[in-house]
Amino acid sequence: MGNPERIKNVAARVAGYLAKGDKVVVVVSAMSGVTDGLIKMAKAIMPLPSEREMDMLLATGEQTTIALTAMALHAMKIPAASLTGAQAGIVTDGVHTKAKIQKITPRKIHALLDAGNVVIVAGFQGQTHEGQITTLGRGGSDLTAIALAAALKADLCQIYTDVDGVYTADPRIVPTARKLAEISYDEMLELASLGAKVMQSRSVEFAKKFGVVFEVRSSLNENPGTIVKEETPNMEDVVIRGVSLDKNQAKVTLVAVPDKPGVAARIFKALGEAAINVDMIVQNVSRKADSPSTDLSFTVDKPDLLKARTVIDGLRAELGFSQVESDENIGKLSIVGVGMRSHSGVAAKMFEILAQNETNIDMISTSDIKISVVIALEKGEPAMRAVHAAFLG
Amino acid sequence: MGNPERIKNVAARVAGYLAKGDKVVVVVSAMSGVTDGLIKMAKAIMPLPSEREMDMLLATGEQTTIALTAMALHAMKIPAASLTGAQAGIVTDGVHTKAKIQKITPRKIHALLDAGNVVIVAGFQGQTHEGQITTLGRGGSDLTAIALAAALKADLCQIYTDVDGVYTADPRIVPTARKLAEISYDEMLELASLGAKVMQSRSVEFAKKFGVVFEVRSSLNENPGTIVKEETPNMEDVVIRGVSLDKNQAKVTLVAVPDKPGVAARIFKALGEAAINVDMIVQNVSRKADSPSTDLSFTVDKPDLLKARTVIDGLRAELGFSQVESDENIGKLSIVGVGMRSHSGVAAKMFEILAQNETNIDMISTSDIKISVVIALEKGEPAMRAVHAAFLG
Repeated sequence: MGNPERIKNVAARVAGYLAKGDKVVVVVSAMSGVTDGLIKMAKAIMPLPSEREMDMLLATGEQTTIALTAMALHAMKIPAASLTGAQAGIVTDGVHTKAKIQKITPRKIHALLDAGNVVIVAGFQGQTHEGQITTLGRGGSDLTAIALAAALKADLCQIYTDVDGVYTADPRIVPTARKLAEISYDEMLELASLGAKVMQSRSVEFAKKFGVVFEVRSSLNENPGTIVKEETPNMEDVVIRGVSLDKNQAKVTLVAVPDKPGVAARIFKALGEAAINVDMIVQNVSRKADSPSTDLSFTVDKPDLLKARTVIDGLRAELGFSQVESDENIGKLSIVGVGMRSHSGVAAKMFEILAQNETNIDMISTSDIKISVVIALEKGEPAMRAVHAAFLG
Repeated sequence: MGNPERIKNVAARVAGYLAKGDKVVVVVSAMSGVTDGLIKMAKAIMPLPSEREMDMLLATGEQTTIALTAMALHAMKIPAASLTGAQAGIVTDGVHTKAKIQKITPRKIHALLDAGNVVIVAGFQGQTHEGQITTLGRGGSDLTAIALAAALKADLCQIYTDVDGVYTADPRIVPTARKLAEISYDEMLELASLGAKVMQSRSVEFAKKFGVVFEVRSSLNENPGTIVKEETPNMEDVVIRGVSLDKNQAKVTLVAVPDKPGVAARIFKALGEAAINVDMIVQNVSRKADSPSTDLSFTVDKPDLLKARTVIDGLRAELGFSQVESDENIGKLSIVGVGMRSHSGVAAKMFEILAQNETNIDMISTSDIKISVVIALEKGEPAMRAVHAAFLG
């Protein structure tokens, strides 16, 4: 949701679906800038505001939009009524600022729909069993839409964003990137976690869990978007669905870690306790058979690098590794596709292309539908174009 | 509530009461300009927005303030928690934008107070039994405070405004006006309805009904305010409590109305159906015994004058009066005081002072604690000063 003008556009779009005879529930987010403005006000009063009160404050952003959206529909003579997350029956746990939806009781939504209304629901928010207002964290409005689509058994769920849909690669880096007509949940999840930031992973996970088919499309035009759904047999005909490049990671290497049971557990438990999200982990084979030691590398989000190094330094005496190295100038290049399961030689082809482009591979990590490599940051974009050209043309 | 700075001042004031060992519930309104901004946004979308959606929209104003106020208390290490009107248990009827409080279930307030919190409640709002968000209309936050004081059996209820308290007259017109230490509900009601706009009548009526003693005082300084409470015997020692001047009325006179039963009823029923609020009504004696007719005058709020004339013109054929006159250049001067009941000659003294000041009296209306006269607008302020000087020094 941008501003009052965007709100009127939403109303016009809704009118189009009504004309087809559809019943419509609209989930809206705060207008652009509103949430940031509220956070700024809060921080002017207290640098680290209470999360309960932040939820109380931020929930007003969506509440403002739902009322204005209902009015915009009224202005077009369309019956409409707004509901806060609490009123819409969205029940969450009590983890303020990042609550999880526990259940949805859409009694009021059904009543308003049955009375002929378009129902406008505030995204991003809910309430606990005890009636505390909560918010769902980043991407919360998408999550609200998908959860409501599941609860209402909707025929169609559309997620409006500022992009046209999901592409085979970021078109700003790969000019030949194409919009995908459809993608499986698992592929979308790999792409979401790989930095193709169309949607948050947990919204896609929720959709997968409850079988909600949804379309990612643009709020700025009428182009068809990308359908995200359960994998179908013909999806495997395509070897890879997309290529992504994550420039926001940093690599940490522990050199000559004594190779004994429990060492890796100790390291990643300590990082986990410090709330540092570790992505790739690679451990090399032991160097010498008589005094076994190994090099252990992992990647973290760049902003967490300093904290990760502090945690690791605190373990040096206990674990006895010789030194720690880190590198922020890396990129993680990934290819994703359910077709990998039925096509052999995909990894070999990717490595060959990288070799032809004189790109050294630092780390490798794979899943059944994804191959990721860590390479030098400055090699990232040319390598991405080369890999895209080879697999996707 | 003005702005973040004012919010911090509120927090500091609350801290002072906590230091005395009090439990504190704070009712806050929207920050200045916020409500007007929301109304402006709504009207940009639709000139006459739905009242249900206006309530949804406007309720965000107070919700923002309660969260920020709780944060300001947290910043002072004071435990605090905010509650929307709905969460605070304020149940209203379903008349959107001017709902009436039906009952208060302060379960959550008590729980939070018992846990050692200052409780911040959003004024001006509540919810229906069905969970619809409602607002209470003008002066709604004062009403919330007084209703909560009644429900919580509070020892003290303070209404913070931009004036120091209730004065014997408007100090901008009467420089010798004094702040009153105390005033009875009935006197306050007469003053409220007479244009001394410290508080809305219905808040005072609510306080009277439930015996809530409250103090009207300034949010800008530490001066003691005015205590509003049930009449006490010694209050009658003072002849009049205050003088007020209402410049916002207009007079309508129906000349030569046939004096037969049902005429007045017909006129004022028609005005009531047009939602025109009639204040004073004066009917003169019949002019001639054989063909009885009378002049009927009444006053309405100036903005309603045109509508009132239209209604009256529509009745001309039916009622057969000869002509209609109206006058916007009037002022209603009133003196108020429970002491009138036990002091005779108050009206005579007032009329004498007006005569000495060459002020012609147009209409007179009295209650047991009030005398109002309609005079020419330009005579209003000098007459007010003269009457104040004579009764209150």
